[in-house]
Amino acid sequence: MTLAQVGVIGMAVMGKNLALNIESRGYDVAIFNRSSSKTEAVIQENPHKKLVPRYSLEEFVSSLEKPRRIILMVKAGFATDATIQSLIPLLDKGDILIDGGNTFFKDTIRRSEELANSGIHFIGMGVSGGEEGALKGPALMPGGQKEAYELVAPILEQIAAKAPSDQEPCVSYIGENGAGHYVKMVHNGIEYGDMQLIAESYDIMRHFLGMEVDEIAQVFKEWNHGELDSYLIEITADILTKKDPVSGEAMVDVILDRAGNKGTGKWTSQSALDLGVPLPTITESVYARYISAMKEQRLKASEILSGPHHDPKRLEENQQVWVEKIRQALYFSKIMSYAQGFAQYHAVSEAFEWELNFGEIAKIFRAGCIIRAQFLQKISDAYTRNPELENLLLDDYFREITDAYQASVRDVVALSVQAGIPVPGFSSAIAYYDSYRTAVLPANIIQAQRDYFGAHTYERIDRPGSYHFLWDLNEEIKIEE
Amino acid sequence: MTLAQVGVIGMAVMGKNLALNIESRGYDVAIFNRSSSKTEAVIQENPHKKLVPRYSLEEFVSSLEKPRRIILMVKAGFATDATIQSLIPLLDKGDILIDGGNTFFKDTIRRSEELANSGIHFIGMGVSGGEEGALKGPALMPGGQKEAYELVAPILEQIAAKAPSDQEPCVSYIGENGAGHYVKMVHNGIEYGDMQLIAESYDIMRHFLGMEVDEIAQVFKEWNHGELDSYLIEITADILTKKDPVSGEAMVDVILDRAGNKGTGKWTSQSALDLGVPLPTITESVYARYISAMKEQRLKASEILSGPHHDPKRLEENQQVWVEKIRQALYFSKIMSYAQGFAQYHAVSEAFEWELNFGEIAKIFRAGCIIRAQFLQKISDAYTRNPELENLLLDDYFREITDAYQASVRDVVALSVQAGIPVPGFSSAIAYYDSYRTAVLPANIIQAQRDYFGAHTYERIDRPGSYHFLWDLNEEIKIEE
Repeated sequence: MTLAQVGVIGMAVMGKNLALNIESRGYDVAIFNRSSSKTEAVIQENPHKKLVPRYSLEEFVSSLEKPRRIILMVKAGFATDATIQSLIPLLDKGDILIDGGNTFFKDTIRRSEELANSGIHFIGMGVSGGEEGALKGPALMPGGQKEAYELVAPILEQIAAKAPSDQEPCVSYIGENGAGHYVKMVHNGIEYGDMQLIAESYDIMRHFLGMEVDEIAQVFKEWNHGELDSYLIEITADILTKKDPVSGEAMVDVILDRAGNKGTGKWTSQSALDLGVPLPTITESVYARYISAMKEQRLKASEILSGPHHDPKRLEENQQVWVEKIRQALYFSKIMSYAQGFAQYHAVSEAFEWELNFGEIAKIFRAGCIIRAQFLQKISDAYTRNPELENLLLDDYFREITDAYQASVRDVVALSVQAGIPVPGFSSAIAYYDSYRTAVLPANIIQAQRDYFGAHTYERIDRPGSYHFLWDLNEEIKIEE
Repeated sequence: MTLAQVGVIGMAVMGKNLALNIESRGYDVAIFNRSSSKTEAVIQENPHKKLVPRYSLEEFVSSLEKPRRIILMVKAGFATDATIQSLIPLLDKGDILIDGGNTFFKDTIRRSEELANSGIHFIGMGVSGGEEGALKGPALMPGGQKEAYELVAPILEQIAAKAPSDQEPCVSYIGENGAGHYVKMVHNGIEYGDMQLIAESYDIMRHFLGMEVDEIAQVFKEWNHGELDSYLIEITADILTKKDPVSGEAMVDVILDRAGNKGTGKWTSQSALDLGVPLPTITESVYARYISAMKEQRLKASEILSGPHHDPKRLEENQQVWVEKIRQALYFSKIMSYAQGFAQYHAVSEAFEWELNFGEIAKIFRAGCIIRAQFLQKISDAYTRNPELENLLLDDYFREITDAYQASVRDVVALSVQAGIPVPGFSSAIAYYDSYRTAVLPANIIQAQRDYFGAHTYERIDRPGSYHFLWDLNEEIKIEE
């Protein structure tokens, strides 16, 4: 009997598609699913593929070449733990277990520690690109033991997406234990930001400029040929052309404005809060989804709370000017969002000693994943120029763009706020820019207040040490050097 | 030997002051500290008080009346766990242990569970008001078994602050297990919001209007006689009058603009993210502190990144008009921040089945604590009118104020953004208002995108059920009823 070179556990759509992707590169792939019906269905749908169906874990494991390469594509959390526990007694030292699920990075760190003494290699791998990506080429973010990665790298490089410009595979070694899942998590946070900024751009065109859905579709189509060229802009243009088969209305007009989420944007924000990294644009995007979900309250509030009067008609003749301003505001704000996300990578890399390669991460994102865009090359280039870059805004390319586009984002925010159109994403972006470039922020007031009511001390601008002021006696005490 | 009615463990400043507060109401108070020198120092500083120093936990416990009432004022985390573990074998059923530390609510829930079968009552109590509050009258937020609360209520009511208007004590039973510490945590988050909004108001006056520190001090003093009447406005006015004894400059000008934090604002935001509650204003305040802490990067960025040119001179003749707009923007934004915080109470009360009394919580905040303000009475009144109020903005008083003041906050945000002054707090407030009152948000775009790349489905505006669109085939599939 020929042994399979790879095994995939979990035959939901992501696991199935990843197995088919691997098979398409010339490998025999053993497949297993807890309920056998799914495995049977995959085989029936794909009768002529080199897929090896297995109906017990023992059978599955014994049909794999050693060292075994097993990719887990099961539900994150309990199911992943249970599957790993069932596998451990069946595996040998040197076997490689890859968790390709949407796993929280702290779980990956824990599992890495639990498996550390078993001799079984463990890789936590972020997989991005949705169902189609899994089938045709996802972006892959593997974290774990470097030597284990080397053993699976040839396969991962074959199944990964290829960057359009240089055909480089969208995978590389990310770092120890939870690094891969962490990078994937922030990828998703960035995705939340991109989507919110696109939604705000649409909203402004629709309600500030009074444009029709078809016209807006055309705008996104044009934008996709410039700096904003990206998967999310492309699909937005496509979405806006679709009509409801029933009513004939634009699909977006029949889709309820209640955005769901799977928690990765939340995790990204919570981790930024833990790390002390300002991440306002992504977090505002998470909150925007939450507030969208409060549909009943909003309907009630819309009848009670007033807003300003705004008449889009007066802007008709300046529409083209405004559309260009919105485009610049979107690109500017996108840069702010990525600057925040990559600053988070910077901080977590130090905190967890992951030695993340920021330029490589940007490169991985160039294809396969949801945030894929030309723009990622600019980020990669910035880190090539300076691998130690603290913040993308300090790079020449981004400095020039933000300098050129800031007037537009200021206009768009100012006018949207005056018109009563919510722009939490754009607002957070310009506030981040203005905070980051401000030498003296009013945090001196906050620190003075903290010292006043809680004796939390302060530093001085003119000499080192920490101080406490006796506010009722007008005296300063030096607390420490 | 007379037995003490109350015992306090932990003689750092908060524990010492709370012990002195209790003693001042006519009680004998046993005190204990892990290192005896602190206990000795407290006795030496307070020779004529009815404080009973004890130098072992055994001695301490045996010098207390039964049921024993013990307040822990030790460092949150490990020290609290260690002290509780040492106490358990010494205590009897029916004794009452109160943790008055800055404890994370999940630790309080855990400890409540651990102690549940011991027969020892456990109360997690938020204590607000800083050192002075602890001594003269703090706001107290006790959570735990209701019957245990009743046993200590008379003492807590005596030591708590009294609301100026009706002399009601600023304490009442909050709810089971972690409810007290949770309410205190969000109190602190709200405090972050208040402080950030005050800092932005100062910043706009200073850099947008070009006002001097003394003039701004005067403005805050005046504001403290109106709707904004509150402890934080009062101390801000006072802070701004203080001069550096060394240089003679305004103290705020020599205090470094790097704001610290003790984590409660972060916890508040992380919990809101878990609960699905939009909490942008408090979270932006946390991020504003983080970005303030990046002083070196900001100094570098200030030389590289450009901003708009702004000349405060041109506003000189309209200064009074702008100061009033800023006041209105501050009050409006404060309302948004509290609306978010109280919505968080609403959500957590349902999630943890705490049956929080929102009006009572607002009443507790009227005195003793850092966010004390006249304004809290308005919140309490709103919940008296409607105990089930989903969001403060739906109450008549708040609706009228926000209606009247929204034009000002729009002007202030628009002009600050145009002038390059960061206003993350104000921006988040108006975005929250505009999002909350908007019947149709552009989240339909986001949900369409999610369905496009991940088959995450969507709802329709015109009929129930969840749907998936086959975007390449222009077909809709009904997924479930």
